[in-house]
This record gives sequence, structure tokens and C-alpha cells, in this order.
Amino acid sequence: MAETDVLAWRIDRGRLERSIEELGRIGATPRGGLTRLALTDEDRRGRDQMVAWMREAGLRITVDRMGNIFGERAGSVPGLPPVMMGSHVDSVPTGGRYDGQLGVLCGLEAIRALNEHAVRTRHPVTLVIFTNEEGARFQPAMIASGVMAGKIALEDAYNARDRDGIRLVDELERIGYLGPEPCVARPMRAYLELHIEQGPFLEEEGLSVGVVEGIVAIAWSRLTITGVQDHAGPTPMRIRHDALVAAAEVVAGARRIATEIGGDLVTTVGTLAVTPNIVNAIPGRVAMSIDMRDPRDAALDRARDMLDELVRAACAREGVTYELEHYWRVPCTAFTPDVIAAVERAARATGARFHRIRSGAGHDAQYMAAIGPTGMIFVPSHEGRSHCEEEFTAIEDIEDGANTLFLAALDLAERA
Amino acid sequence: MAETDVLAWRIDRGRLERSIEELGRIGATPRGGLTRLALTDEDRRGRDQMVAWMREAGLRITVDRMGNIFGERAGSVPGLPPVMMGSHVDSVPTGGRYDGQLGVLCGLEAIRALNEHAVRTRHPVTLVIFTNEEGARFQPAMIASGVMAGKIALEDAYNARDRDGIRLVDELERIGYLGPEPCVARPMRAYLELHIEQGPFLEEEGLSVGVVEGIVAIAWSRLTITGVQDHAGPTPMRIRHDALVAAAEVVAGARRIATEIGGDLVTTVGTLAVTPNIVNAIPGRVAMSIDMRDPRDAALDRARDMLDELVRAACAREGVTYELEHYWRVPCTAFTPDVIAAVERAARATGARFHRIRSGAGHDAQYMAAIGPTGMIFVPSHEGRSHCEEEFTAIEDIEDGANTLFLAALDLAERA
Repeated sequence: MAETDVLAWRIDRGRLERSIEELGRIGATPRGGLTRLALTDEDRRGRDQMVAWMREAGLRITVDRMGNIFGERAGSVPGLPPVMMGSHVDSVPTGGRYDGQLGVLCGLEAIRALNEHAVRTRHPVTLVIFTNEEGARFQPAMIASGVMAGKIALEDAYNARDRDGIRLVDELERIGYLGPEPCVARPMRAYLELHIEQGPFLEEEGLSVGVVEGIVAIAWSRLTITGVQDHAGPTPMRIRHDALVAAAEVVAGARRIATEIGGDLVTTVGTLAVTPNIVNAIPGRVAMSIDMRDPRDAALDRARDMLDELVRAACAREGVTYELEHYWRVPCTAFTPDVIAAVERAARATGARFHRIRSGAGHDAQYMAAIGPTGMIFVPSHEGRSHCEEEFTAIEDIEDGANTLFLAALDLAERA
Repeated sequence: MAETDVLAWRIDRGRLERSIEELGRIGATPRGGLTRLALTDEDRRGRDQMVAWMREAGLRITVDRMGNIFGERAGSVPGLPPVMMGSHVDSVPTGGRYDGQLGVLCGLEAIRALNEHAVRTRHPVTLVIFTNEEGARFQPAMIASGVMAGKIALEDAYNARDRDGIRLVDELERIGYLGPEPCVARPMRAYLELHIEQGPFLEEEGLSVGVVEGIVAIAWSRLTITGVQDHAGPTPMRIRHDALVAAAEVVAGARRIATEIGGDLVTTVGTLAVTPNIVNAIPGRVAMSIDMRDPRDAALDRARDMLDELVRAACAREGVTYELEHYWRVPCTAFTPDVIAAVERAARATGARFHRIRSGAGHDAQYMAAIGPTGMIFVPSHEGRSHCEEEFTAIEDIEDGANTLFLAALDLAERA
């Protein structure tokens, strides 16, 4: 069979669409979104559904100590490392039906297409589902690929607690996904992750596929401001030390940092909690998060310095004390040239309109890039929206992305 | 017995101190404060303790349909309206041991002192404990005196819900304080309320008693801002509509309104809740409260106009929508000259260092003033602090306040 014939192979769009539909029902919200927080009952049902489909596709299932699920399609040459495809099935609260889920389903569809064409590959092809990618329930995000890459200690991950104080390891056990396999780096031919872009660029330029070159640097900080809780009525303005007034200045200042540094820097205060949070009490305490990202590590360093000064000045002005922790930082990630090239060849072969792009969001691919050759494929997000119920990607674009993933994986795994 | 002898009568400081200590244990926090939210089990235990003491003091107990508790000491002349003394036993979360509680305990001590001196009064003397004064659990604040004064419909009060959606009337019934008496205005000789100042003025001037002339006007507003929830990473700053950025501008602007109008205007954003409140999501929704108070109704009108414009401009700038409700407003309350005069005479007789003062906080006295002659007695708050665990009033000052309350009540109830 000539090489050109292989490049004409396609995934089954109808089957993929039905799987997206079916998996999307688990944890579905009334307004078309998804709430499937990591290691909840919804997450377990999502995992169970995936495992059932992976078994049907003939994959050999293993689960590691972080609950990561692997489904291997054997290669023809013993001992060769696998081509891995994967993503996650957990979501943020009232998130969308595409973030994460699309990556594992397109990977599954690629394997189903390999089966359908009865193709043998020299390397194994492995589908992987990572635990707690979102970081919405347990922090930090991408905790399980982080453990795999040796960047996060297994014990720290196990002791991560959700808002109710429940430990990650206890939930892993409860839902039946505390596996026996070590969660460690292993040789791999490549890791490929298809994901929604979560930004507006592909749609704005009328493209269906993004060939991802890397991921921006990300810094997460946690700020706790302590003022003086007091009655909102009889306490004159002159003696107030209002934690929320200082916090508001930090919110405004974080926006200003992005404007001043410019370029692709983004800054977000995503969480803010007030204590005691009642109408007639001056806030005594505010806890908040600051998320900053930039494709340039140096710009992120500068932003962090500006944040330090901003917080210091805002809190001094209001006469409040604070604790500022820069608790998570991942540097810029550059994906592997030969994997990027394979994705690009595949995108071209499918006839997709594509160009190269950088990811503004963290993905498990970030940690996987520390283990071996890694690349990503983006499909457009309507209006750039994600982490919300309105998240949407057209099936035509998903089809282009899935075919790109399929052909790139086949290329890297090498027909036997 | 000459009038001068009466003016030499005093309450029993040791007994009062022990009662403060004992009642303060119900709902006590580890750091010396109190969490006794309205109609919780702690509130019920506080009420039960008060009722037991009131029965011991020989009072006739009745409970009305809003759960207000009345303990009447009969007068000698049938048909004369009572002199009422009262306050509340509910607290804010992690509040203090003096706010409210001190008023009912000093009232109880005044009655115990009347008993001890075996004095008969022409008017009955009634101790009242009002339901849900704080407004921390059910809104609005002072809901039960509001119903009594005909300012709030009984049905609306019954349907007030806490954060968990539980109705006030169901909690009244659950804790056994849904009484049979109508909650309506009745003739009264006077209403007297002793309360902590909750501001810094008495302490700053070295005084032990404030003779309260009235209460400032209060306006509560509720603001909901709706932006576009999106991923914090790949969403460039230029397309963001961040509800929290607009909210922060409102927090800063509310502070600015107080500075610009000046005088005694105070403005506070006490509650602020972010949705979805996760680190890597641009806030799609913020709900917040604005509390504004001024002794001049016209200044409060002006502040509200400025708030309207502030919110409009902040939301327009960020491209977000909003709903702003001015849902509660009480005008300035002037207390009754003959009651103020009686309080002042009593303060002088006790030898307290006192002066006239205005209340910056709302109290049940506000609604009671719409029913009949009303006055208040303030005792100092250390560093002006209240609604916090550090709330503190020295026993020497409490003693002066309680004696003032005792002598004023005796004066107004008229010795038989």
C-alpha cells in the first residue's frame, strides 16, 4: 500500500460525535455545560465509561498510583516506547463539554480508526487519561502529570485537600482509581494532546487546527490580607483598616500590570473570599488568587516584581498586613521540533486550515514535555470561551483536529 | 423615702458580671467572641437561659409571632402602658460578647434591682428580647421590631431565607419560639435600650456613658455584576469582561464617595462573592453589598446618586452588565426629648462621665421610636471595635450604663 493511501485515511466523524454526546451526559448541567470535578462520583462515571470503551477497542488497561488510566494498543516491535495520546475528563464547576474530554475522545477515536484499518504500528499506541488536570478541586492543576514528571512529590499530591478538607488520596481510593502502577516517567516515543484552544485566535483567523509550538509560563500567587473587622456603622472612615479596600486595589493593579507590560501577558484575579462577609461588617480578611501568564519568562518575572510592589503599597496605604505566596510557577515550555513537524504534516494531509500557535493555558503536555518528545493540536473555541457552559467547538473543526491527531500518531508510531 | 435616696440606689455589679459571663458561654468562640446566629440552636439556648432568669425574677413571659420575648413586671396602676427595656441575643458570625447581649442583661439587672429594693412602679416594666436584630442570618436586620412597628409585613419576614434557603418562620418553629401573641405596635410609656457604642468616640473622650439622641439614616444596596466567564490563560486582555475588575472599581469608588462627601458619611462593601471563584477562570459574576450611613438624610441621597453613577461607569468601562437594587433604607431617627432627658438625669445621678451622642448603627430602638417614646444608652467600645471577637467594654463602664438604665427606667415608670 502506498504512503499516499495512508494519508487519505480518516477517523469516523459520526462515531466520534456520538461519543462526545454520550460522555457529555455524565455531569451535564441544565444549560449544556459540565460539572465533573476531579474524583467525584461524576468523574468516576466518566472514567468508567472511558475504560469500558477502551476495553471494547481492545486496549490493555492499567491504572497508576495517581489514578492516571492507560490503555495500550500493542506495537509490533517488542521494547519500543509508546506513542501516547491523552488529556483529562475532569472539568471546572459549570465548565464546558469540550475541555479535556475532547482530547481523550479524539485519542480513542484515533485508536478505533487504527483498528478499523487493521493497521499494525511498530510502537505501541497508548491512550492516557490524567487525574485532576483542572486544579478546580485539588491544587495545583495538572497534579498527576506533575507527579509523573517528578515535579510534584507523590505524598504532597496525596495530601492535597479540597475545600471541605478531603484528601486527594482518599477520594482516589473511594472512587476505585487508586491503581497499583508506579506513577513515574517512562520512555515514550511521543506524547500528543488534542485540546480546545480556549482563546479566540483560530476562530478569528478562520482556521480549524492549531499546531502548538509550546505553552506560556504560568505563575500562581496566593494573597491573604488581614485588616480590622469592625461594625460598618459607627466606625468612622478615618480609623478603618478594610481588607477588601486593599484587595480591590490589588485587583485593579493586577489589570494595570498587564496593560503596562503589554505583549501577551495576562493577569487574572480568579478567586476572592471575604471574611466575615456580612453586609454591616468591615471586612477583616480577604484571601485571593493571582494568575499571571506570559510566553516570555522574563516578562513574567517583571510582572511578579510589580505585583510584590503593588501589594506592598496597597496594604501600606490601608494599614493592613498581608501574606503573599508565589506558590506555583512553570516556565515556558517549548514542544519538540520533530513532533511539531509530524503534527504539521498531518494537519496538511487532512486539508485543515492551520497555523502554528502557542498555548496560553497549562496542559498535562507541559509536564509530559519534561519526560519526552511532546506536541499538541488545538481546535477552535467559539468566541475564545472556555471554562463555562457556553464552551463550543464545531464538529467540522473537531473532525479536522481528530484526523490530524490520528495521522500524526500513525506517523510517529510507524506502520509495521 | 426622699427622692435623693432613690437616686443613690444601684444595680449589683457582681451579679451582672456573672450573668454576662454565663450567657457569653453560649455560642462562645475559642478566641473570646460569640457566634450565635439568629434562630440557631445557640440562639435557642441563649433565649432559654434568659427566659429562665426572667422567670426567676418573677416576670410574666409571653412570646409573639416573630419570636420576640417579653417579660413583664406588673405596675401598680391598671391599664398604664409599660416602660420597656430590651435588645437582642443574636450575634454576627465570630462577633463579640457585648453587642445586644449587654442590653438585655442590663435590663434584667435593672429589674432584679427593682425587686431587691422592693419598689413598686405605677407603670409595668417589661424586658424585651428581639429576634434577628443583626441581619447576619436573615435580612433585613431588625426584622422583628420592623414587623412590630408595621414597617415590614409579617409574611415577608416569615419568608426571609438564610444562605441555605431555610425560611425564618420554619426556624422560629423549630427552636420553639413561634409564639401566639400578635406582633404589633402597642402603647408604651417608653422604650429604653442600652447598647455598646460600636464606635470610638466615648473611649477617645474618656466617657463611660453616651446619652443617645438618635440614629443615622442607613441605606443598603445589592449589586450583581455579570461579565463573561472565561479561561484565565488563553483569553487576551483585550476581549475580557471581568466582573471582578468592575466590582473592584465599585469598592474603591464607594470609599471615594465617603471622602468626597465627607462629614460623618460612612460607606462599606461588606459582602462580595465571586462566581465561579476558581484560580484560572475570569470571574463571570460578582454579587456584593453596599452599606451607607449618614446623620443627614440629604447627604445619603447624594451618596446614593453618586453610587448609581459609579456603578454605571465602572460596568460600562469593563463591558459588563449589572443589577443594582437599593433594597433597604431607614431615615434618620430622632429620639424622644423627655426620654433623652430622663436618661441624662439618670446618667448624672450615677456620677457617670457622659455626653450626648448619635448612633451610627441601626438598633431595634430605631423601629421602636416609630411606636412610642424612645431613648438609648451607650457604653464605650474599646478601640471602637465591634462585630468581632475583640469587642470589649470594661465592667466599670457597664456598671455606669446599667445604673443609668436602672434609674431612667425607674424615673419613667414612676414609683408608686
